[in-house]
Amino acid sequence: MTTSTRNRQWIYASRPDGAVGLEHFQLREAPLPAPGPGQALARVRAVSIDPAQRAWMMTKTYRPQLVPGELMPAFALAEVLESNAPGLKPGEIIEGDFGWQDYVVVTPERVQRRDAAKSIEHLMGVLHFTGLTAYFGMLEVGRPRPGETVVVSGAAGAVGSIAVQIAKIAGCRVVGIAGGAEKCRWLVQELGIDAAVDYKAGGLSEALAAACPDGVDVYFDNTGGEILETTLSLMNVHGRIACCGAVSQYDQGGWSTGPRGVPGVLIFKRIHMEGFLLTDFLKDRKVAEKALTNWLRSGKLKAPVEAVNGLENAPQALIDLLKGRNLGKMLVRVS
Amino acid sequence: MTTSTRNRQWIYASRPDGAVGLEHFQLREAPLPAPGPGQALARVRAVSIDPAQRAWMMTKTYRPQLVPGELMPAFALAEVLESNAPGLKPGEIIEGDFGWQDYVVVTPERVQRRDAAKSIEHLMGVLHFTGLTAYFGMLEVGRPRPGETVVVSGAAGAVGSIAVQIAKIAGCRVVGIAGGAEKCRWLVQELGIDAAVDYKAGGLSEALAAACPDGVDVYFDNTGGEILETTLSLMNVHGRIACCGAVSQYDQGGWSTGPRGVPGVLIFKRIHMEGFLLTDFLKDRKVAEKALTNWLRSGKLKAPVEAVNGLENAPQALIDLLKGRNLGKMLVRVS
Repeated sequence: MTTSTRNRQWIYASRPDGAVGLEHFQLREAPLPAPGPGQALARVRAVSIDPAQRAWMMTKTYRPQLVPGELMPAFALAEVLESNAPGLKPGEIIEGDFGWQDYVVVTPERVQRRDAAKSIEHLMGVLHFTGLTAYFGMLEVGRPRPGETVVVSGAAGAVGSIAVQIAKIAGCRVVGIAGGAEKCRWLVQELGIDAAVDYKAGGLSEALAAACPDGVDVYFDNTGGEILETTLSLMNVHGRIACCGAVSQYDQGGWSTGPRGVPGVLIFKRIHMEGFLLTDFLKDRKVAEKALTNWLRSGKLKAPVEAVNGLENAPQALIDLLKGRNLGKMLVRVS
Repeated sequence: MTTSTRNRQWIYASRPDGAVGLEHFQLREAPLPAPGPGQALARVRAVSIDPAQRAWMMTKTYRPQLVPGELMPAFALAEVLESNAPGLKPGEIIEGDFGWQDYVVVTPERVQRRDAAKSIEHLMGVLHFTGLTAYFGMLEVGRPRPGETVVVSGAAGAVGSIAVQIAKIAGCRVVGIAGGAEKCRWLVQELGIDAAVDYKAGGLSEALAAACPDGVDVYFDNTGGEILETTLSLMNVHGRIACCGAVSQYDQGGWSTGPRGVPGVLIFKRIHMEGFLLTDFLKDRKVAEKALTNWLRSGKLKAPVEAVNGLENAPQALIDLLKGRNLGKMLVRVS
C-alpha cells in the first residue's frame, strides 16, 4: 500500500432539481493533507453510499443542507497511516464522516475505532449504520411480537435486507416490498422471508393484501409515498409504523403531499407511527453489534453487500442506488 | 315529568357528499317502546353532538359506516322510567349509545350507571367521553413535561377546551389554534392559556411560530389537514403528536392527501405520532374522573358547555358544530 501525493475528492457541485446525475459532482485533486499536532492521517478504505446522501442535497435534515462546493460527505472507513494523535495508531481502522476522498486528516474525538479483524463489508454494512438502523428500528420502534405480520419496504436495500431477517429471527411472518421480480425472488430464496411483493408490477394493494392475510402489525418504512399509503390501509389495530427512510421522496424537488389517511386511519386503528434515527440508539450499539455478530456466526443472518471498486465510481454508485439497482448494502472500495 | 305515548327519532336519511345538511335527516314518530323481560325503559335526557358522528357517515371507522334508514346514533344520558332489569332502578341516570330519540329500551350490559347527583352538563362533557379523551390523549399519548410547549388544534371545542387546560395544569406553555378572533380571545381570557392563534385569519405558519418561540413539543391534533401540516413543520426533535380527531376531513367526500413531511419530517425530528381512541383507556376511567372532578372543584378546570334545547334541534346542532360555531362541549337537552 503506497501513499499518493494527491488526494482525490468528489465535490458536490450543484443542487439537482430532479434525479441526481453525474453532472452534480466534480472530481478535484488536492494535495495530500498533512496531520498537525494531535491529528492523524488516514487512507480511506471504503465509503458508504446511502439514500440519505440524496436527502442531504434536498433540504435541511438532521444535518444542514449540502452547499455546492463542499466535499461530498459520506460515512467511511479508513486506516491510520501516520499519527500525532494519542490513541490512534498506524494500521488501526477508524470510522467517521470522512467524505468521498482518498485521504483524511482526523482528530480522535471525531472518529470511532473499529475491529480491524472484521471485514470491511461487515464493518460498513451489517455492523455499521445500516445494520444497526435495521436492528434498533425493527426491535425498538417496530417491536414485533412472534406470530405478527411485519412488512418492510425497500426490503432489498441495505437496511431493509437486514430488517427483514431480524423480523424472521423474531418469529414473525415477514413480507418484503421491493422493485422488480428479481429482487423479490432473491428476498424469498436467499433471505428466506415469507413473501415478497413487486411494487413495480402494479396492483400493489391487492398483492400486499394477499401476502398479508392477517393484516399488517408492523410496517418498517424505507420509502414513504404511495407504498406507505397502501400499507397504511392494511394496518391492524394497534399497529406500529417505524419510519426509517423516505427514499421515494429524495430524488425530487421537495416533499410530496403525505399519505391519505394521516391522521384519520391512525386514529381509528390507534396506530403508532414513529420516525427514528440511529443516533438516538447509539448508546446501546455494543448490545446490537453482539447480537448481529452472533446471528452472522450462526448463519441466521446474511449480510448482502454490493461493493463497487474505485473512488471514481462513487457518483454512479449513488445514482444506481437511488434507481434501486443494488441488493443489500452499497459501498465503494477506495483502497 | 310525563311520559308521552310517542317516541320521536331522528333517522339518518341519506349520505352527504359534502357538508352535512338538514336534508340528510328525517324525524320519525314511533310508538313508545315497551321494556321486555330483563329490560328497562328510559327517557333520554341529553344527546351528545360530536364530530365523530360526521365521520361515521363518511366511512367505516371504529364502527361500521352508517346506513341510511338507521336511527342516528349518539352517546346519550337517560333516566330510567320503568325497569324489568336487575340493577336498574327508576330514577337512575344511565349512559350509552341511545341515539337521537326521546325514549330507549335498554339492557343492563349495554349501559353504564352514572352519579345522578352530578349535572347533566358535567356527565356529558368533562366527565364523559370528551373530557376523558382530553385527559388520556394529553397525559398518556402527548405526555407533556413541565416547561414544554403544547399546541392544541380545535382548542375551543369539546375535547380541545379541556385538553388545553390539562396541559396548563401540567405546567406547560399552551397555545391553542381555533377559528375566529372571538374563540381565541375566549381561550386566553376565560381558559387562561398562553396564546391562541386564529387559523382563519391567514398566516397560520408565521402566527404559530411567533406563539411558539421554543418550537412545539406536544401537538394535540383535533383537525388534521393543513393545520397538522403547519404544526408538523414547527415540531421539536422528539416531539409527540397525539392524533385525536380529523375534523377538517369529515365534512367532505373522503380523506384528502396527508400532510407534507410525513414521513420525512417524522424521521429527521424523531417524532412520535400516535392515533388513539378513548376505548383503549377506559379501564382507567375512574382515575381520570377523580382527577377531573378534583380540578373542577378546585377551580383549576372549567367545563364549557353549549347546550341546545329540544331533540328537534339535534341535526342543526351537528351542522353548527361542524361549522365550528360552539365553544366547548355541545349537547342537546331532550328532557
